[in-house]
Amino acid sequence: MEDVQNTLATVALPIDSVGVRNLRLPISVSRREGGALATVALLELGVDLPAHFKGTHMSRFIEVLQGRQEDLSYKSIKSLLEDILERLHARKARVIFDFPFFMPRPTPVSKATALQSYQCRITGELALEGKLDFILEVKVPVMTVCPCSKAISREGAHSQRAEIRLLLHLKNFCWLEEFIEIAESAGSAPTYPLLKREDEKFVTEQSFANPCFVEDVVRNIAEILETHPHISWFRAEVESFESIHAHNAYAWIERYTQPDSQISCTDLFNMVC
Amino acid sequence: MEDVQNTLATVALPIDSVGVRNLRLPISVSRREGGALATVALLELGVDLPAHFKGTHMSRFIEVLQGRQEDLSYKSIKSLLEDILERLHARKARVIFDFPFFMPRPTPVSKATALQSYQCRITGELALEGKLDFILEVKVPVMTVCPCSKAISREGAHSQRAEIRLLLHLKNFCWLEEFIEIAESAGSAPTYPLLKREDEKFVTEQSFANPCFVEDVVRNIAEILETHPHISWFRAEVESFESIHAHNAYAWIERYTQPDSQISCTDLFNMVC
Amino acid sequence: MEDVQNTLATVALPIDSVGVRNLRLPISVSRREGGALATVALLELGVDLPAHFKGTHMSRFIEVLQGRQEDLSYKSIKSLLEDILERLHARKARVIFDFPFFMPRPTPVSKATALQSYQCRITGELALEGKLDFILEVKVPVMTVCPCSKAISREGAHSQRAEIRLLLHLKNFCWLEEFIEIAESAGSAPTYPLLKREDEKFVTEQSFANPCFVEDVVRNIAEILETHPHISWFRAEVESFESIHAHNAYAWIERYTQPDSQISCTDLFNMVC
Amino acid sequence: MEDVQNTLATVALPIDSVGVRNLRLPISVSRREGGALATVALLELGVDLPAHFKGTHMSRFIEVLQGRQEDLSYKSIKSLLEDILERLHARKARVIFDFPFFMPRPTPVSKATALQSYQCRITGELALEGKLDFILEVKVPVMTVCPCSKAISREGAHSQRAEIRLLLHLKNFCWLEEFIEIAESAGSAPTYPLLKREDEKFVTEQSFANPCFVEDVVRNIAEILETHPHISWFRAEVESFESIHAHNAYAWIERYTQPDSQISCTDLFNMVC
Repeated sequence: MEDVQNTLATVALPIDSVGVRNLRLPISVSRREGGALATVALLELGVDLPAHFKGTHMSRFIEVLQGRQEDLSYKSIKSLLEDILERLHARKARVIFDFPFFMPRPTPVSKATALQSYQCRITGELALEGKLDFILEVKVPVMTVCPCSKAISREGAHSQRAEIRLLLHLKNFCWLEEFIEIAESAGSAPTYPLLKREDEKFVTEQSFANPCFVEDVVRNIAEILETHPHISWFRAEVESFESIHAHNAYAWIERYTQPDSQISCTDLFNMVC
Repeated sequence: MEDVQNTLATVALPIDSVGVRNLRLPISVSRREGGALATVALLELGVDLPAHFKGTHMSRFIEVLQGRQEDLSYKSIKSLLEDILERLHARKARVIFDFPFFMPRPTPVSKATALQSYQCRITGELALEGKLDFILEVKVPVMTVCPCSKAISREGAHSQRAEIRLLLHLKNFCWLEEFIEIAESAGSAPTYPLLKREDEKFVTEQSFANPCFVEDVVRNIAEILETHPHISWFRAEVESFESIHAHNAYAWIERYTQPDSQISCTDLFNMVC
Repeated sequence: MEDVQNTLATVALPIDSVGVRNLRLPISVSRREGGALATVALLELGVDLPAHFKGTHMSRFIEVLQGRQEDLSYKSIKSLLEDILERLHARKARVIFDFPFFMPRPTPVSKATALQSYQCRITGELALEGKLDFILEVKVPVMTVCPCSKAISREGAHSQRAEIRLLLHLKNFCWLEEFIEIAESAGSAPTYPLLKREDEKFVTEQSFANPCFVEDVVRNIAEILETHPHISWFRAEVESFESIHAHNAYAWIERYTQPDSQISCTDLFNMVC
Repeated sequence: MEDVQNTLATVALPIDSVGVRNLRLPISVSRREGGALATVALLELGVDLPAHFKGTHMSRFIEVLQGRQEDLSYKSIKSLLEDILERLHARKARVIFDFPFFMPRPTPVSKATALQSYQCRITGELALEGKLDFILEVKVPVMTVCPCSKAISREGAHSQRAEIRLLLHLKNFCWLEEFIEIAESAGSAPTYPLLKREDEKFVTEQSFANPCFVEDVVRNIAEILETHPHISWFRAEVESFESIHAHNAYAWIERYTQPDSQISCTDLFNMVC
């Protein structure tokens, strides 16, 4: 049968990335406390394509995924990328895993526990004979109480749910859980899946003792991330679903924290966009 | 050229509705204060199909829409449905328009004005020699302050944005604006596109003087709608984006308010689903 | 501490359903071939509320979910609803689980296997001393080749991905897998996660030998479902992402198949909407 | 009343961008053929914030938008950014308009006309005493016929809808319409809102005479854009909703086309992400 993909390209331009997207699979993810969490991921897998080849062989991306037994981790991402480089004769490969992660969240007073969900996204990129580039993204819901509303009103202050989004270029292995905890402590209060009445009183009072703008939230996070030993670049963003408006407020801070970062801005752009 | 649609169906079953969806068009909508509002709609248009025909002629739905100059209203929906019945030789036709509507929203104290957006959806259904069935849907953002959190906490109370969704089977023409106003007065406070500091103080204090659960919000609305002279059925729903949780709270009340309603529950089901 | 929820409602109207939504949890689902599949669900849980109570106790929904070990099934849904009825002193309870399900999908010629994802949704409703109402929804991607385009063109025919959506009111236990297979055989060809070149040739030729309109697809399904012994109501819908248009074509058939159905249309409406 | 925003920040870090999002407004957009098109936009507006200020004054973003009468264009974006810089005492401002644009699309044979919708996004960024940076994004649906499927199958070939996404950094004013036309000619055939039978025959045959992979589509576009006199950077991406799979195929090419580009990659990253 003819191998059309292997014929010459009519327009001989190199392609930065070609592959498959929106592929859903059950996966398991290593947890800090040991063991693994079963979850479901949306995947993207891609490779570069030299100027002279008409097409890549898309079915090989699916084949590479079959029979893999490892939990998702820094190490398994690297091994997956090496397989893709080899099977598709590529010079650069990229994979993205987008999945909900879960952590037990104890109630602050009644000490019951329920699971909280956090949307995560891991992007790994590897060039032939290169070093693994690894970008971690976590989305963490928090509560914010408005400092202005509190200062000027006779009673109360508007509060709302906000979503923190961290994008991190990691130089070494770190647990997802660490960054979820950094984000959860950056608002007026964390959110909880379960709150009994004594817990609701505690969280309400905690949040009103600690009012913060979206500006405060991203600064609280950036202050910690800019001296983190394993991060070479980060973007901390928060979007607040204002209760007094139908629109949202947002703020973000983006920084290279290590001058000798191995990742270029162009690479970042292409990994994150 | 062969007219495949007009050949006999292999499986001779009547089809409830067949047509086109996800069609985007600029439209204009009549406003209570006079004139019309330019906006953009997503459309669905469909007809029944008797058991013996293989297919409907989809391109005629698009043709029927060309050259129409009327503003969207009860009357123009009826005329559009009559055109569809005729052009597609159908016995039943249905159209759905989903669009953002805008109303000027004055700030409560400083008296400035800005536009607020409300997502609306109009469903019209007409059978040959039948009466127009007309379902109006509006989504209205409001603010809710939690009565429990307020009662038990030393200071403050959690508040959040909530979205009210009204579904209304109308017997006579009514303005969209009337139902938006009913919904906006049903929470702890409305939301505003623009609030200066004196306005923010006012809205915060208003909302804390009027705490309400999702249960209170739908009851406030249902109390008004159940005696409304032009409504024969309604569903009032609210979903609150709780600031202390990552999940939402909801409540709904659904009622036939006029025993001689011309719409059957099966029709409702098929118009709303 | 004051129990505000237990105070009298200001507007004494009964509420059809009040509860929590958008709650994400890892779950496992029983499989026809034995064992269970680990996946992730979005949940909604709700109860009715009598006219005189101001509010329900939302945290109890979360508590009821803790520590449950059973795989998702007809039986576990019933037991969960019984727990909710008891813990929330309710007369009617409803739960919705929305989750991706996975089935191994062998390639037609090369006989390799990969997992295909299908979005499913189970709605269970139980009244005090009533019988469990159970609605199953599955979404199944298929391929359609246009019979008109094929008949009139010198070469080829446009084809596209389409999504079948089945809603089924079940009287007895049935496997999800059965309905996925019914849907997959109703288009021009199924879709596959993995296709090698010999498989792609097979699927292309199979689909061109079997062109079908959206009308054909829903009739193929309805013909099977209307005599299915365990279904008392169904809605079969297909939406085709037309490759020659930016809009979609759709068709649906909805039927009560058993005259003694225990579910009323009002109940259906409220379970499905 | 206290101006909390003007107090000192607890954590004195500069913020890259702070503002409002998800604000919906009716707008009008200049058209190449003259006149303006009424549509609806989602807006984001933001400014930088120096390290020492606690917060920005969010209500001023909404005030700046009031009373503006100009059609959306390169010139009006610049004037809006200048207003924001002044009103918010900022050194850098950014606005994003996301909106559906419409063009009349004549059928190829029967010569009827209907409107086609294209999602567009304009990002403008201006620093004090700087030059306007302007990024245009357009999404254009096309049809692709698979060259491999066509070459190996006895009959037919799978085809599908695909979406082209162009991101363009413009040095000078260009019409949206130009890039929509470039994209529409890059697939196997354009899509049309309206096709009569003779048109459907034409489009089917045109597309089968011109099969292309996602790789071909982006190369066709890149070849044109890389020598375009008014573009200094572009990213051409296509995502194909494969009819034989439930997942999608994608490809993209990204290039700086002018060495003296005034936009840095960091700026691009922050404008596009």
